[in-house]
Amino acid sequence: MKKTRIILAGPRGRMGKEAVTLIQETEAFELVAAVDRIHEGKLISDLEGMPNVQAPIFTDIEKCFQTVEADVLVDLTTPEIGRVHTKKALEYGIRPVVGTTGFSEADLAELKELAEEKGIGCIIAPNFAIGAILMMKFSQMAAKYFDDVEIIELHHDQKLDAPSGTGLKTAELISEVRETKKQGHSEEKEILAGARGATYDGIHLHSVRLPGLIAHQEVLFGGFGQGLKIRHDSYNRASFMSGVKLAVEAVINIDTLVYGLENIIE
Amino acid sequence: MKKTRIILAGPRGRMGKEAVTLIQETEAFELVAAVDRIHEGKLISDLEGMPNVQAPIFTDIEKCFQTVEADVLVDLTTPEIGRVHTKKALEYGIRPVVGTTGFSEADLAELKELAEEKGIGCIIAPNFAIGAILMMKFSQMAAKYFDDVEIIELHHDQKLDAPSGTGLKTAELISEVRETKKQGHSEEKEILAGARGATYDGIHLHSVRLPGLIAHQEVLFGGFGQGLKIRHDSYNRASFMSGVKLAVEAVINIDTLVYGLENIIE
Amino acid sequence: MKKTRIILAGPRGRMGKEAVTLIQETEAFELVAAVDRIHEGKLISDLEGMPNVQAPIFTDIEKCFQTVEADVLVDLTTPEIGRVHTKKALEYGIRPVVGTTGFSEADLAELKELAEEKGIGCIIAPNFAIGAILMMKFSQMAAKYFDDVEIIELHHDQKLDAPSGTGLKTAELISEVRETKKQGHSEEKEILAGARGATYDGIHLHSVRLPGLIAHQEVLFGGFGQGLKIRHDSYNRASFMSGVKLAVEAVINIDTLVYGLENIIE
Amino acid sequence: MKKTRIILAGPRGRMGKEAVTLIQETEAFELVAAVDRIHEGKLISDLEGMPNVQAPIFTDIEKCFQTVEADVLVDLTTPEIGRVHTKKALEYGIRPVVGTTGFSEADLAELKELAEEKGIGCIIAPNFAIGAILMMKFSQMAAKYFDDVEIIELHHDQKLDAPSGTGLKTAELISEVRETKKQGHSEEKEILAGARGATYDGIHLHSVRLPGLIAHQEVLFGGFGQGLKIRHDSYNRASFMSGVKLAVEAVINIDTLVYGLENIIE
Repeated sequence: MKKTRIILAGPRGRMGKEAVTLIQETEAFELVAAVDRIHEGKLISDLEGMPNVQAPIFTDIEKCFQTVEADVLVDLTTPEIGRVHTKKALEYGIRPVVGTTGFSEADLAELKELAEEKGIGCIIAPNFAIGAILMMKFSQMAAKYFDDVEIIELHHDQKLDAPSGTGLKTAELISEVRETKKQGHSEEKEILAGARGATYDGIHLHSVRLPGLIAHQEVLFGGFGQGLKIRHDSYNRASFMSGVKLAVEAVINIDTLVYGLENIIE
Repeated sequence: MKKTRIILAGPRGRMGKEAVTLIQETEAFELVAAVDRIHEGKLISDLEGMPNVQAPIFTDIEKCFQTVEADVLVDLTTPEIGRVHTKKALEYGIRPVVGTTGFSEADLAELKELAEEKGIGCIIAPNFAIGAILMMKFSQMAAKYFDDVEIIELHHDQKLDAPSGTGLKTAELISEVRETKKQGHSEEKEILAGARGATYDGIHLHSVRLPGLIAHQEVLFGGFGQGLKIRHDSYNRASFMSGVKLAVEAVINIDTLVYGLENIIE
Repeated sequence: MKKTRIILAGPRGRMGKEAVTLIQETEAFELVAAVDRIHEGKLISDLEGMPNVQAPIFTDIEKCFQTVEADVLVDLTTPEIGRVHTKKALEYGIRPVVGTTGFSEADLAELKELAEEKGIGCIIAPNFAIGAILMMKFSQMAAKYFDDVEIIELHHDQKLDAPSGTGLKTAELISEVRETKKQGHSEEKEILAGARGATYDGIHLHSVRLPGLIAHQEVLFGGFGQGLKIRHDSYNRASFMSGVKLAVEAVINIDTLVYGLENIIE
Repeated sequence: MKKTRIILAGPRGRMGKEAVTLIQETEAFELVAAVDRIHEGKLISDLEGMPNVQAPIFTDIEKCFQTVEADVLVDLTTPEIGRVHTKKALEYGIRPVVGTTGFSEADLAELKELAEEKGIGCIIAPNFAIGAILMMKFSQMAAKYFDDVEIIELHHDQKLDAPSGTGLKTAELISEVRETKKQGHSEEKEILAGARGATYDGIHLHSVRLPGLIAHQEVLFGGFGQGLKIRHDSYNRASFMSGVKLAVEAVINIDTLVYGLENIIE
């Protein structure tokens, strides 16, 4: 079997380090080069705390593309750099898998056209945690059969915003497929303000913040004599790696741009 | 809007009573007759504990079909009677929704041919609890992205068999889509026999039995730094009614036989 | 072993029926009479839907106490009648176990004096669900070791008030043992109002309302790298019977009035 | 307020590093010295990855005790070294808080005598995770009121033994307070061997092993129409620090040896 040859941009970030490990531990993957702001001419194995991988480091991505043959670019840099890298990769016929946000509608349209012109895949995913994506997808599916749903998201107590982005996104996805409904008893009354949580299009959201917690969410559906609960627990950032792996495998077999991992999950 | 006219077979059973209530409470449904072993010539409202529904009762299903115009037969009788009723209904052009098991492959083939010949729908469902069916469907979907899964099913302590039918069915469905895998540490050791539960094709199943419990199941997936849990709670037999409702709505719009509610859920 | 002889007041109510079953199924208990508003001179077994228990029914509680020898009165009537019954029972040297609320401080003081004068026990309990009482007791204990706690209570969607009485009571009990604390990030922000729930003395409470649910509560504690969750599920009113049983057993061995089941649990 | 002056033995171990952070972040605590196998004469702040704490490091614990005034020794070394350190500390009038196992009954008796002779406290705790200890304590308490209980423990899939030590310990503690009971239906049958888990004195234990999980346990009680669940989640080893903190606070106020953190929890 031919291995998928990967160039990794951003190898020293927290996600990047996990990605080096992922590629090294996946038999079908091969890390052929890295793109970094510094360390031109060194090898991954020269950097402190890195595994013994003999991939050369480039500071100029075009030089990297001209020097090394590769199938996929995994980009875990910043939004600004990620945009530039994605376009360059497509121009060189290398499939991008990009984990940054910050692409405008116009950016996506342009990149999609370029991908289709070149006849290669491109995956841009703001969230690589497959479990979270499945939770959202299943929630949207279940909402067709259960009119009543509440969302409880639980995070560490250093989180500033409530509800969480994933909580809101889940409510939006459910809202797309169900008719607006005011849930609960029509005369229900809050003895203490806020008890019934926030509402988004009739869907109640509750945000728990406790030390020790990491990132968790429960979507609870209720109907005649039954309940259905979908819960995702994210324990650490390694949770993103299964999504990166899936995207690398998928990007080989598509010939257009796909935005959001939910769209490559069947 | 034209109401869906329903004949109910088996109105006095535990499921049947719930179905009378369901049909009465659903605006788009109308109970036009019932088929029972006894009470020929009476009305549903004549029976003790029944709501005030003026639907006539027939002991002969053919006479019922000849007398009353209907769209759907909801059959909640026994497997033997259910088989006969289903065939008769199709012959009279009435769409059957059948909640009994015990159909052979040959039965299903014959009924399917008949349904297609008549150009009408027929739904046979051994399990009407939509939540349970969604749990199984989502589990099968998630198994494509998570290699490791364990099933915990929890029931009242009067249950004889372990694991439960739904637990086993879930393991089978997961097994269909993943490669066989021996989960856990390769050298794991049971200090007390049975601690790691039963296994079905490498999937571990655990059966909890406690007084107070009704019927519950959790399917737990684990991967890099994350977990996904799908839980169904069945609190009472009203939980089946949402599935009956869905099947009645669906059977109007199909022109073949569908076996299993999971196949009408998108 | 000598059986505990019980007079049951209120045998036809929903709780009363469960109590008849409980007494009948408990080997150490014997139902010797019942007190009811009607049915003077009949037996329990004469009433529809009752088991075959040959206990006589009295409409006058004093006549009952004069006619039948008994150890304990289980009173499951209304607050007003319960108050009268409790006093009468103590006067006749019969130990009351009372499941109604509505006793004033003055009532309790008077009844306590009477119980101690007679040297017999009396238990008045607004809540007989042992699991709920243990949940509250454990929560109060855990609060000494975990500064951060949130309460999620989940009920059917016909419930009017939020949060539930048990939810509030739990927060009060926790509040008694911990110093006031503002939990969460000091600059946390609700993007949607209500997301962080209601607060009681710094403790956040979240009320979920869904069809299918019955009565459930989770108390979540969080600390350095860990979490502790205590959950109670009440599936039906039989859940009160374990508390009635415990109270009947306990009332024999005490010689004063005890208010609240939590005070006979060690 | 006078700060508690602490000597830490084993500062570079994984637990030790967490303890340095704990002491630094607790206003009432002060790290006055450390005992290590190497680094004599250096300061904690000289070591890589350590916070800026100016505490001197000693390789000889007696020299440390002679040089630095302290209230408490927190020992996070190995069983062999821990035993020696504990005795020396007591001889020097310094209260030990010891997180290692491996003390024999004879060791404990000798150390207890020494502690009482000196009139100072000594706490030896094989498990510092307060949440786990509370879970076990509450489980034992609840077992007096619920005859039926099952234990589910869930760990990462690199764990070798099943059930876990905490799972077994919980079953033992429950077993101490309840009469032996065979749970489940008297004729229950395993269709797949192992489905009902392991049993310890009639208590069923189930061990789940999945990647992503860390260390979790649920204790489930069931009774008439209700359930009570106690769950502990340990997300990382910081979870031990709340127990260390509690023990340091408690050891100041006792004048004997206490074995097991459960015995200082009320």
